[in-house]
Amino acid sequence: MKAAPVARLDPDAPSLDALSPDGPSPDALSQDAASPSALTKAASPAQRVAIEAISPSVDNGRFAVKRTIGESLIVEADIFADGHEQLSAAVEWRLGADKWNRVAMAPVVNDRWRANLPLKSQGIVQFRVEAQIDSYGGFVRDTARKLEAGLALNVEAQEGRALLAQAQAQASGAAKSALSALLTKFDAVTGEAQIALLLADAAKEAVYAVGAGKFVAHSDVQEVRVERQAASFASWYELFPRSQSATPGRHGSLRDVIAQLPRIQAMGFDVLYMPPIHPIGTANRKGANNALTVRPGDPGSPYAIGSPAGGHDALHPELGSLEDFRALVAAARDHGMELALDFAVQMSPDHPWLKQHPEWFTRRPDGTIKYAENPPKKYEDIVNPDFYADDALWNGLRDIFLHWIDQGVRIFRVDNPHTKPLPFWQWLIADIQAKQPDTIFLAEAFTRPKPMYRLAKIGFTQSYTYFTWRNTKQELTDYLTELNAAPVRDFFRPHFFVNTPDINPPFLQTGGRPAFLIRAALAATLSGLWGIYSGFEICEAAPLPGREEYQDSEKYQLRQRNYAAPGNIVREIAQLNALRAVEPALHSHLGVSFYNAFNDNILYYGKAAPGHDERLLIAVNLDPHHAQACDFEIPLWEWGLPDTAALQVEDLLHGYHFTWSGKLQTMRLEPAAPYAIWRVRPARKVAS
Amino acid sequence: MKAAPVARLDPDAPSLDALSPDGPSPDALSQDAASPSALTKAASPAQRVAIEAISPSVDNGRFAVKRTIGESLIVEADIFADGHEQLSAAVEWRLGADKWNRVAMAPVVNDRWRANLPLKSQGIVQFRVEAQIDSYGGFVRDTARKLEAGLALNVEAQEGRALLAQAQAQASGAAKSALSALLTKFDAVTGEAQIALLLADAAKEAVYAVGAGKFVAHSDVQEVRVERQAASFASWYELFPRSQSATPGRHGSLRDVIAQLPRIQAMGFDVLYMPPIHPIGTANRKGANNALTVRPGDPGSPYAIGSPAGGHDALHPELGSLEDFRALVAAARDHGMELALDFAVQMSPDHPWLKQHPEWFTRRPDGTIKYAENPPKKYEDIVNPDFYADDALWNGLRDIFLHWIDQGVRIFRVDNPHTKPLPFWQWLIADIQAKQPDTIFLAEAFTRPKPMYRLAKIGFTQSYTYFTWRNTKQELTDYLTELNAAPVRDFFRPHFFVNTPDINPPFLQTGGRPAFLIRAALAATLSGLWGIYSGFEICEAAPLPGREEYQDSEKYQLRQRNYAAPGNIVREIAQLNALRAVEPALHSHLGVSFYNAFNDNILYYGKAAPGHDERLLIAVNLDPHHAQACDFEIPLWEWGLPDTAALQVEDLLHGYHFTWSGKLQTMRLEPAAPYAIWRVRPARKVAS
Repeated sequence: MKAAPVARLDPDAPSLDALSPDGPSPDALSQDAASPSALTKAASPAQRVAIEAISPSVDNGRFAVKRTIGESLIVEADIFADGHEQLSAAVEWRLGADKWNRVAMAPVVNDRWRANLPLKSQGIVQFRVEAQIDSYGGFVRDTARKLEAGLALNVEAQEGRALLAQAQAQASGAAKSALSALLTKFDAVTGEAQIALLLADAAKEAVYAVGAGKFVAHSDVQEVRVERQAASFASWYELFPRSQSATPGRHGSLRDVIAQLPRIQAMGFDVLYMPPIHPIGTANRKGANNALTVRPGDPGSPYAIGSPAGGHDALHPELGSLEDFRALVAAARDHGMELALDFAVQMSPDHPWLKQHPEWFTRRPDGTIKYAENPPKKYEDIVNPDFYADDALWNGLRDIFLHWIDQGVRIFRVDNPHTKPLPFWQWLIADIQAKQPDTIFLAEAFTRPKPMYRLAKIGFTQSYTYFTWRNTKQELTDYLTELNAAPVRDFFRPHFFVNTPDINPPFLQTGGRPAFLIRAALAATLSGLWGIYSGFEICEAAPLPGREEYQDSEKYQLRQRNYAAPGNIVREIAQLNALRAVEPALHSHLGVSFYNAFNDNILYYGKAAPGHDERLLIAVNLDPHHAQACDFEIPLWEWGLPDTAALQVEDLLHGYHFTWSGKLQTMRLEPAAPYAIWRVRPARKVAS
Repeated sequence: MKAAPVARLDPDAPSLDALSPDGPSPDALSQDAASPSALTKAASPAQRVAIEAISPSVDNGRFAVKRTIGESLIVEADIFADGHEQLSAAVEWRLGADKWNRVAMAPVVNDRWRANLPLKSQGIVQFRVEAQIDSYGGFVRDTARKLEAGLALNVEAQEGRALLAQAQAQASGAAKSALSALLTKFDAVTGEAQIALLLADAAKEAVYAVGAGKFVAHSDVQEVRVERQAASFASWYELFPRSQSATPGRHGSLRDVIAQLPRIQAMGFDVLYMPPIHPIGTANRKGANNALTVRPGDPGSPYAIGSPAGGHDALHPELGSLEDFRALVAAARDHGMELALDFAVQMSPDHPWLKQHPEWFTRRPDGTIKYAENPPKKYEDIVNPDFYADDALWNGLRDIFLHWIDQGVRIFRVDNPHTKPLPFWQWLIADIQAKQPDTIFLAEAFTRPKPMYRLAKIGFTQSYTYFTWRNTKQELTDYLTELNAAPVRDFFRPHFFVNTPDINPPFLQTGGRPAFLIRAALAATLSGLWGIYSGFEICEAAPLPGREEYQDSEKYQLRQRNYAAPGNIVREIAQLNALRAVEPALHSHLGVSFYNAFNDNILYYGKAAPGHDERLLIAVNLDPHHAQACDFEIPLWEWGLPDTAALQVEDLLHGYHFTWSGKLQTMRLEPAAPYAIWRVRPARKVAS
């Protein structure tokens, strides 16, 4: 085989030599480097080997796939060429600017190839697929077939020798010596011994060491954002520090929050999230229940950030000092928890930036400040900066994150990110994670599906979801199925909050204690990330009439609670979190399968963790008012078992063991105990 | 709004001005121009407006979408931005190197936008989506809401005036005059009249004429290959000219083929396809039934191309002269047909190129020529050139096409393209279609699914398929569903041959005349492209025992036939082709829906053409041995009709009219008349 006719095909195409593993960086060689109009002209000779349908891939590599440390990245692609050529393929990958590594791919079925990359460090991993025609491998394959058919192989021996000599001519160092030695051996023997030498692994390995593949092709470069486990598995508890005082009517403090930590730890939560803790503006402050007129002593909404006491980098004076804050960080750590802060880009008219950086804010033609609005509504307690007014604003906002990171915070819940420029978040998250890769960003974007997903694509670690409004069997099945499908599964990590200070769902308002149990069980078992807002554990649900908002919302007033109130579900929450801690199947929303339970009020699903043979079966009665019973199928087929086989079962809520024999079983779930969680594996003997 | 902070975000990003419609070419501005690693750095400000999920698109624009002249290209994309900004979007498109045109896109639902591009000329059309923030549109929307709410709008009036003035400052020519006039009018009135002026269409149009959108974003450039109608809709008839002599035992000629044209035209075929018509080698010639020993007078396989009489640009002497060939082209045209030639890159050892261009062929170390092989099998009547031996080979092969194009041929059936380099075909097809856009290439690649699809992606107009081996209801439903789904539907045009000289399907071997009727009806109604190889119309099916090959295959000997033999299905084929000619729903494999017929032996489907309210309903009894009957559903829901409604029906095979009332109907199909074709539309009155 002589040189490919590169010159005629595409004068600018890299030569075959340049396509070797040690050639230019993958970026320069991406197939996408060719403009689309090149399709109407000549093709690069490298395209003789096709690489298609790489997975995982988000928008063809425009955005990073998300994974966590300790996971494997399973890379697959369709790889094939014309003719009957033997191919070889590998995944090339690197962390950040490190040197490129290679992992060999193996064919699976129907031109699909696969490799497994263990992910051991946080950061951005780049990868691409390389595939090539393996001439020596093809020679070995064909010659072995002829040998088996008993054909004379004199000429094949000479062809094989030529391939060895060709590789030897390209080689250097130890590889050259090895090939020279092989050629000497070859010339010293004859007939079958020559063929045996050519087909032996030693010859193949010697040729492969030279990297003598032909028509090397590369896929586009893809990226994986590798994050720590809390990015995908964590249990959040949200509280307003100002409500945590033990003395009724007294404004709570960060020190009061420290006193709550043992209680929260006992429930099994590992992230403690606080709405904004910064100084609250007084201009146009809102009163209780969002009243436009304020009464003396009304604390105001913590989302009206900024007062003469400071802005986003300050603490509300009544909450305590920076020293108190650091004490809370340390105490939380001692209780197995970390803090999550709220980040809301909205300022009260008293925010210091309005005086310090007037150029960051839009003024109207009459000289007045432009308030936030959703025409015809206007929000006169809030001013938004103009993100395209001045370069320094972006850095200023970024520095707020860095300030709190310096205080030990690694998790931020971002308020309404969909109403601020997408490029700002993309820049901010990349910039911060480059400095502190532990940083986690939760997007609170209750918006349309496509913007919600886009925020995850541009870097948000986790996202609030529509879970709160998905109540029926069909709704939950459809939503989890969507979240489990590619490409969403590869970039969007759902956070299932059962309630928030803004969302008091009708299901909880009307369903009583069983409704709280139902929603807790769904969130804690369907998603790796779940959270409750305080009050949920004592089944608080009094609404503003006809609204999804809470009566006497804590956003506008103090709400001290008796967390041991009768009817609380503290024990059940603690049990769910304890199961989450030890069951890998509960560490992700992925790996869910919905099975047949013949009752529309019973959602019944399995969860399996990668590499685990056992699985959890979970059934939830979605009806908080009535007991529900049904026949249901145990998924014997997941282990290739016949319908008559048996499963060993452990009831994880009650700790007892038993056996299910045969595919069809029955269950009954009372509103007072509306869910069941079983861990199952095949029984040792198949039932008759 | 001041200048965007471009400098900090990305020093290399184009300025906003550069992103105007008159800026650089789309290629330079593609979002893909950013290397993936840019995702970890700053984002371009243009990415504030997201453009995702463009359709149609093949491999993210790497390959062209296929359409035919007269079709509309419906372009869709997800388009959205952060916040509540008003957006506008357009498709920019151009044919070849023409200037860019624009078609406005309109929102459909859930951030999906759409535009319709009529395709009026053959060639490569490039298109991309442009989207931007429409500041003036957003002002109009918000101000209208405030007006409706009865708010005071003094400041809004000033804001609107500022927007007009801003546009006026950017404008020139007529647009500037229009805006100046508007500003003068504005200043001459007050209050509500100012607002009315700002919200009027005239103001919007004046601003839009300046193109004052912000944050202009562009998608990747996509391509559409627009071809003539025969690319997607044609009925092929294949014959061996050497068998067409009216005198038994005499070698047929091209003049004999002319005599067959009226018969073929009467059956309704419009493409006449001939296997290779070039000189046939004598070296290692194969005898009848592929025998390795040849008898005197055996004509040899026409796929062993080349003899001292010439190569691929010559005619086999017994078939006639180039003058005869041109006469055949003309006669075919007179009979409403065009010719399709075979192109097989394989040479007999006698091919003139072996002497003229020895450098195009591989010799083995012992000096012998390398025959085609599939180890351990070797094909000693065939030599393949080495595509990477010498640059001139590609031009030499291309010139063969140009030679026959000069003789009036516009359709080529390419033999086994998957065993020749993919880049060769990509280059060849682009090169030829640039010279003669009417040229059609049919890929005969009976290979694995992914290489089969890849050949279509790189430019083959049409493709042989797995249809011949899809016989059951499930197989046919699955296959047609796959061919109708994106992205396959956008680049792969299936050609449903019912038989070929190489494929004598078991279903035809064992099913008798009804089997031929069944397969003809399926191919002719399920695909825009179908074809038969001569002998099919007289139900020839004698196989080599246990093989899919024909006994006494015409590939190795003359086969003169009585085309009026008893039991022929000429009338039925003619009727199917006549229906195809007048029913737009039969012009494509697209637009098929499979409906419920409660019998696994009856395939029942609907076909609808875009923009047509009526549809065809087709039922085929897949069992050639027994009558089959069933209840079936008429798809009243396709027109939003209740289950009690009625359809007006025309039986297209028998010409009579009737009405179906109610969703459930019954049918019975005999083996002798195994299919039904009905044209239906809603009855004028709904049945009670």
